[in-house]
Amino acid sequence: MLAELRGLNEECGVFGIWGNPNPAHLSYYGLHALQHRGQEGAGIVVSDGQHLRAVKGEGLVNDVFNEDKLKAVNGKAAIAHVRYTTAGGGGIENVQPLLFHSSTGSLSIAHNGNLVNATHLKQYLERQGSIFHSSSDTEVLAHLIKKSSHSPFRAKVKNALSLLKGAYSFLIMTKDEMLVARDPHGLRPLSLGKLGDGWVVASETCAFDLIGAEFVRSVEPGELLIITDEGVKSDRFAEMDKRAMCAMEYVYLARPDSDIDGINVHMARKRMGKQLARECAHIEADVVTGVPDSSISAAIGFAEESGIPYELGLIKNRYVGRTFIQPTQELRERGVKMKLSPVVQVVKGKRVVMVDDSIVRGTTSRRIVKMLKDAGAAEVHVVISSPPMTDPCYYGIDTSTHEELIASSHNVDEIREAIGADTLTFLSVEGMVETIARPYEDENRGLCLACFTGKYPTEIFPDTILPHEKELLR
Amino acid sequence: MLAELRGLNEECGVFGIWGNPNPAHLSYYGLHALQHRGQEGAGIVVSDGQHLRAVKGEGLVNDVFNEDKLKAVNGKAAIAHVRYTTAGGGGIENVQPLLFHSSTGSLSIAHNGNLVNATHLKQYLERQGSIFHSSSDTEVLAHLIKKSSHSPFRAKVKNALSLLKGAYSFLIMTKDEMLVARDPHGLRPLSLGKLGDGWVVASETCAFDLIGAEFVRSVEPGELLIITDEGVKSDRFAEMDKRAMCAMEYVYLARPDSDIDGINVHMARKRMGKQLARECAHIEADVVTGVPDSSISAAIGFAEESGIPYELGLIKNRYVGRTFIQPTQELRERGVKMKLSPVVQVVKGKRVVMVDDSIVRGTTSRRIVKMLKDAGAAEVHVVISSPPMTDPCYYGIDTSTHEELIASSHNVDEIREAIGADTLTFLSVEGMVETIARPYEDENRGLCLACFTGKYPTEIFPDTILPHEKELLR
Amino acid sequence: MLAELRGLNEECGVFGIWGNPNPAHLSYYGLHALQHRGQEGAGIVVSDGQHLRAVKGEGLVNDVFNEDKLKAVNGKAAIAHVRYTTAGGGGIENVQPLLFHSSTGSLSIAHNGNLVNATHLKQYLERQGSIFHSSSDTEVLAHLIKKSSHSPFRAKVKNALSLLKGAYSFLIMTKDEMLVARDPHGLRPLSLGKLGDGWVVASETCAFDLIGAEFVRSVEPGELLIITDEGVKSDRFAEMDKRAMCAMEYVYLARPDSDIDGINVHMARKRMGKQLARECAHIEADVVTGVPDSSISAAIGFAEESGIPYELGLIKNRYVGRTFIQPTQELRERGVKMKLSPVVQVVKGKRVVMVDDSIVRGTTSRRIVKMLKDAGAAEVHVVISSPPMTDPCYYGIDTSTHEELIASSHNVDEIREAIGADTLTFLSVEGMVETIARPYEDENRGLCLACFTGKYPTEIFPDTILPHEKELLR
Amino acid sequence: MLAELRGLNEECGVFGIWGNPNPAHLSYYGLHALQHRGQEGAGIVVSDGQHLRAVKGEGLVNDVFNEDKLKAVNGKAAIAHVRYTTAGGGGIENVQPLLFHSSTGSLSIAHNGNLVNATHLKQYLERQGSIFHSSSDTEVLAHLIKKSSHSPFRAKVKNALSLLKGAYSFLIMTKDEMLVARDPHGLRPLSLGKLGDGWVVASETCAFDLIGAEFVRSVEPGELLIITDEGVKSDRFAEMDKRAMCAMEYVYLARPDSDIDGINVHMARKRMGKQLARECAHIEADVVTGVPDSSISAAIGFAEESGIPYELGLIKNRYVGRTFIQPTQELRERGVKMKLSPVVQVVKGKRVVMVDDSIVRGTTSRRIVKMLKDAGAAEVHVVISSPPMTDPCYYGIDTSTHEELIASSHNVDEIREAIGADTLTFLSVEGMVETIARPYEDENRGLCLACFTGKYPTEIFPDTILPHEKELLR
Repeated sequence: MLAELRGLNEECGVFGIWGNPNPAHLSYYGLHALQHRGQEGAGIVVSDGQHLRAVKGEGLVNDVFNEDKLKAVNGKAAIAHVRYTTAGGGGIENVQPLLFHSSTGSLSIAHNGNLVNATHLKQYLERQGSIFHSSSDTEVLAHLIKKSSHSPFRAKVKNALSLLKGAYSFLIMTKDEMLVARDPHGLRPLSLGKLGDGWVVASETCAFDLIGAEFVRSVEPGELLIITDEGVKSDRFAEMDKRAMCAMEYVYLARPDSDIDGINVHMARKRMGKQLARECAHIEADVVTGVPDSSISAAIGFAEESGIPYELGLIKNRYVGRTFIQPTQELRERGVKMKLSPVVQVVKGKRVVMVDDSIVRGTTSRRIVKMLKDAGAAEVHVVISSPPMTDPCYYGIDTSTHEELIASSHNVDEIREAIGADTLTFLSVEGMVETIARPYEDENRGLCLACFTGKYPTEIFPDTILPHEKELLR
Repeated sequence: MLAELRGLNEECGVFGIWGNPNPAHLSYYGLHALQHRGQEGAGIVVSDGQHLRAVKGEGLVNDVFNEDKLKAVNGKAAIAHVRYTTAGGGGIENVQPLLFHSSTGSLSIAHNGNLVNATHLKQYLERQGSIFHSSSDTEVLAHLIKKSSHSPFRAKVKNALSLLKGAYSFLIMTKDEMLVARDPHGLRPLSLGKLGDGWVVASETCAFDLIGAEFVRSVEPGELLIITDEGVKSDRFAEMDKRAMCAMEYVYLARPDSDIDGINVHMARKRMGKQLARECAHIEADVVTGVPDSSISAAIGFAEESGIPYELGLIKNRYVGRTFIQPTQELRERGVKMKLSPVVQVVKGKRVVMVDDSIVRGTTSRRIVKMLKDAGAAEVHVVISSPPMTDPCYYGIDTSTHEELIASSHNVDEIREAIGADTLTFLSVEGMVETIARPYEDENRGLCLACFTGKYPTEIFPDTILPHEKELLR
Repeated sequence: MLAELRGLNEECGVFGIWGNPNPAHLSYYGLHALQHRGQEGAGIVVSDGQHLRAVKGEGLVNDVFNEDKLKAVNGKAAIAHVRYTTAGGGGIENVQPLLFHSSTGSLSIAHNGNLVNATHLKQYLERQGSIFHSSSDTEVLAHLIKKSSHSPFRAKVKNALSLLKGAYSFLIMTKDEMLVARDPHGLRPLSLGKLGDGWVVASETCAFDLIGAEFVRSVEPGELLIITDEGVKSDRFAEMDKRAMCAMEYVYLARPDSDIDGINVHMARKRMGKQLARECAHIEADVVTGVPDSSISAAIGFAEESGIPYELGLIKNRYVGRTFIQPTQELRERGVKMKLSPVVQVVKGKRVVMVDDSIVRGTTSRRIVKMLKDAGAAEVHVVISSPPMTDPCYYGIDTSTHEELIASSHNVDEIREAIGADTLTFLSVEGMVETIARPYEDENRGLCLACFTGKYPTEIFPDTILPHEKELLR
Repeated sequence: MLAELRGLNEECGVFGIWGNPNPAHLSYYGLHALQHRGQEGAGIVVSDGQHLRAVKGEGLVNDVFNEDKLKAVNGKAAIAHVRYTTAGGGGIENVQPLLFHSSTGSLSIAHNGNLVNATHLKQYLERQGSIFHSSSDTEVLAHLIKKSSHSPFRAKVKNALSLLKGAYSFLIMTKDEMLVARDPHGLRPLSLGKLGDGWVVASETCAFDLIGAEFVRSVEPGELLIITDEGVKSDRFAEMDKRAMCAMEYVYLARPDSDIDGINVHMARKRMGKQLARECAHIEADVVTGVPDSSISAAIGFAEESGIPYELGLIKNRYVGRTFIQPTQELRERGVKMKLSPVVQVVKGKRVVMVDDSIVRGTTSRRIVKMLKDAGAAEVHVVISSPPMTDPCYYGIDTSTHEELIASSHNVDEIREAIGADTLTFLSVEGMVETIARPYEDENRGLCLACFTGKYPTEIFPDTILPHEKELLR
């Protein structure tokens, strides 16, 4: 199974800071801003110039940290991580940043993304005698660095990075330096900022806004930033490959107030909503409503372009958290209701345009359509602000296998039938690319569209072909 | 101080169910839907026809309950409560429903609202030898019931209720019956619903939607419902006085998907937003944004009416929870940012209409205006979807004293100055009354407008006048 | 059922301190020393001269309190309590000291002992309109004080105490004074000590030793101590009745390093062991072993007098705590083994004298005898350092009903048979009285022997006779 | 510093079970019996024949496990560990059994003892590219096994064990087998038992008694037991070296009801106490008392031999647990009192023989002598049931450095002076060896006496000499 190649570094967020007297607290704020990228675990590793110390835990940022814990690890630099996990891959030993001790000093690594050749590299390393403590991809990098015969440390890191395939934003910290690397396609966002005399790095710019840091620029694909007390130096571990920023970051992953490569996420979504309205001008309806929170921007755009009034037809419960009651069939239906409620007087007797950002399995869409119809909606027109998702993502978004993607085996009308909608419209690939409107000139304007087109920017390794081990490590 | 008359039953939510095999679990769902009315504590008291047993705790519904605790108190009926507390009035002994044991059986009470003569009644009862265990108003009712010489139980309750002044929705449960009472002005909402063969009662109708119950009708002001295994009987403990439903329930307190007296809350807010747009047609602006979550509906209405595009200029962090870091001045500013972020590319260089539901002290408004200006807004026009709040509420909303209400001592232009806005517009009282559009014909259309007008529907008791004790209890 | 008269104040411990800058911390130490008297809950109520504030919780002293909680309630005086509960009577609302608020000030009460007329008094008080919040006896006293028409406060207390029957050591605190009362028979121990310029009171003198306080004297039966900033004044609420200190305090309840009425508990137990050896001089054996911890002193005495070597034939696991695994029959047997282990090489092939302090149901004795025999003991001679327990205790020791006391329906040989011992010897009543050797001259030397003789020092009230209510309160 | 060679595997306890349907629960009981060997952390790794799964945590066995956690890891075999840590070496990553995953299957290791060449081996392994995740010695073994070129698995293990120097009892589990190894000197105890058709292994025999297993024999020094579904096979990874069982296991470490190499611990201690009485026949005294719990057996022996009555002059508080209050000088004195109390009426005016098991720094002895004198003891004669401890232990007992051992730099009279005793007597080395009376014929009768004599059974590696790396791994 191709899917088994995939490790556990699903969508996550990273944050780093160098040259600040309060790195633990600022990392806490940084992770707070990135919380939407991972709710399963959080960690901060702080350097005081001599030692690296970790604070980690499973759960939300506010559950993991408290004032006493942050005070206990004061220093001058830190890297930090929020973690999203698929079922079964939890466990405190997988919470990042990973921290390794050795007689030559400690090393810490935080990773956002997913490697496509992790399985191969692990097998190779195990044959060389390596022992793995976590099931995370990230540990592979530590072993490759350790085993590299190059010198000094940053040369080892460059050597190790050159063996990786896939999507990654890495923060690598020793007591002397923080190295920042982004894969040659730039599949995951990563930005550099400035705070006073120090430097910050984060998966999304919203983390800079919260701590009052100033955005400097995106880290370039294939670039290696070396941050020390002397400042930031730019190096490369690889030539930039074809740019391929994940389109889904714009569609639903990133926070609306973040900018990715200069494009504001809310504005991009609103433009996608307007484009969607243009692409389904035939629909006649009374109200437009978005599925909160990620589809609100597109819904506003749709309403503005179509002239159909925008309403709160669905509201989200702010206090959902971890509901403990185990799902029987009846309770699973209620589970959706605990998160989302229809506003009966808005939808009753109305022709409703329901804007959502994407359809994966179709089950959630089916439940929401049913909820609107049960509330009295006369018609439900589902409009999706992204194209049909036909292929799995191997770069860190948990869309699982072909089997689970309804659009990989059903055409639009079959999906419409399955979700019980009166009409169903997806945004066109071209419409999406044009309205995201990234400032690059190639045909995809620097987007990765693999999940819509099946054209993966990197090689994809079937598990069974064990390649050329001896050539892996030079 | 008038303010000291006020007890601890600030805004809260109540839920009750009779004649269902799963009352503890359904109460849990009910409280979940009412969570926005109180986050400090939650409790459920279940009756199995013989005994009443309580599960209670401080914190959110999901923190207080778990499957084991709910299973342990199975039965056939329950009353439940979520609690909102002002600083200092916490403590597990104040978490409701209160439960009292005696040789003649147990009694449990849940209360939403605030009594204005609680201090008088407590002093009277103490002179009669009563001992109070909580600092809550609600305990007063238990003592009055106990001391009443009437018979049977429901007559005691009617006698006791007749002595209370103020706002209240009470659920009173013994092993034999559940009594439901709403004050003669109907200051707080309370609705009756049906679930299978059983009955449910809740502060807001959104609780019915979640559990699949059907709305039957509002409980009438002055009405006493008596729910037993025989069904529901309607009685009265008082004549209905002038209707006076709290206007702030429509403005910001209730959930948008609840209906109060047949009026949907979201729709009322949207109409208020439209009216507000009509009342400030002079404002020229580029974008409309609402302060999430409670002002979104009004902002949508404002945008629709004014034709100015609606944008997400401010987004709310979904993961705020309990932030532990203690507020220094710098951190307090960041505290607001942890909850709310401006979307820079939306507001930069724009003339922004910022819709909010109300101004109490003005400090939060000032911080949000500053946040927008710091993000580059060219102008910030603050529009408020309710009139200036000049007088304190004694009926359960924590607006504190005259001193703390900026509108009690400052005119609109002074407030505008204080919050740093370019213009400031409040909705007119008439505009609010007309657009809420309740189906009653008196001048206020059955609303309590005391906080805007100073005209309180009930007598307000200064602490010092100790009235007519002997006449209190007949 | 007579047994139902009994409330929930089973064996407990009280501690009080007045006139010290650190009352919360010293109460914590005091409760720590009294932990053996109650492990179900603990509480401290502190007075700062203005307000009373409580810290309470279920569990052990070290689980309930921490530095932050103690710091938060600083003041100048405190009363404190550790609680022992029988099954079903738990709940945070029963954890003492109880704290009552009223407009004339707060009142706190801690109680060690058991009232025999609590049910009557509760029924009476309920008819007068009182509402009870806990199922504890202690609340009765608060209501009686509240209802008393006497004045000043200490006269109300004397009036209320005069209505109580049974065993009690009470600490009663307002912001102005601490009242200390012991029942007219002196059924439970209570001592006064001095610490610097302040005063301390405790159920056992071991609490004084831990905090470095000096023992002053026992509180007299029927005495009321009034402790204020002016010092200690002695008053009486009743004449001293026939002294009747619970014999079981010497036998197993109190800590060996405590003195009760000048008699050290360990020394009394050792003398009882010696006397027991004299009373069963016929037994031939190889080793003497005690059931830890409470029978060690008696076993040492027995060995010394008999000349049979004392050995550790049974050892106690120091880390028992709360074992969570639910008892199946097999696991229940293991449950005893988790607490107690035989030392095989000590008992194998030996004739063992096993010293225990008492036999209640006989089930534990049976298990220990079996454990010794399974470990290879050739003979097991059980010797008990107290007489057969034939009658229930109504004064606070949880020996339950006649039905449960094996000695109420079985003679010594039948009990021997039931527990599987080769011989069984109980200490004689006379032997016990003589060797405890209290300094009083009456026939029982001031001991309560009710559980061995059925002669109760107080009236015992059958539940059904409702006596003279009107005369109760003058 | 020699001391830095020492890793973190201080005194601990191991338990293993193979071929039982309830391995998690039985391991819980086994760890419960071994709790005295380590209170800082506990873990169980269970095999279901396919996968290994871990339950671990910091704290006591009863805090770490509960029914739900044990149920969740059902299987057919388990290894388990309780951990004792010196300050600073905590952290969940050091809690054992360690668990390693690889594509060829998982591996788990539990370790009691201390390696003396761990630092050398770690440095060697790091040069080979190994990365360490814990600071524990135990991880070294995993890497050595992984790197061994031998085959099959058990040959790798034998190869790896042959490189270790020091004290160790290892349990090593894969899904197919459990390997059990004890160092060639047999420095730490390890026994094999039988339970039904399955096999158990434990540091002490008291674990067998609790679960109803039958003792089979000690694991031999240098022996490797291979336990599979086929049964137990005995192999060797090394010739047996000179036997050297830690004498301190008999003196204070092991539980009195355990047998080590056929010698019961309580009986050995009692004999040491008797010998001590013979060695200080000159002392005239009134009472003998032991410092609980570990010196009770010796004190009983001393009393029996000397004819001086044995008394409870010191009692131990059963509820000490984790006292949270931070030690000021005053509170540190109280800290001892919270654990230990003198029984004033026993010691007042008496000449007291105080029996203790050992003197390390002398500070605790000084506090206890002072406590007895403050309680009125006329004379305090300290007698120690082991010889002066002059040299540090490198095999797992935390006696720290020479500097900290008072007997390494002070003679007996200087120590007496330092602790404030009237006389001080240590047991002679010969007296100890004779009265422990192990069934071996060499001069030490198979005991390690290094801490009393400085003669270490193994080579001790100074940190600086980096030996023969190439020869380490063949």
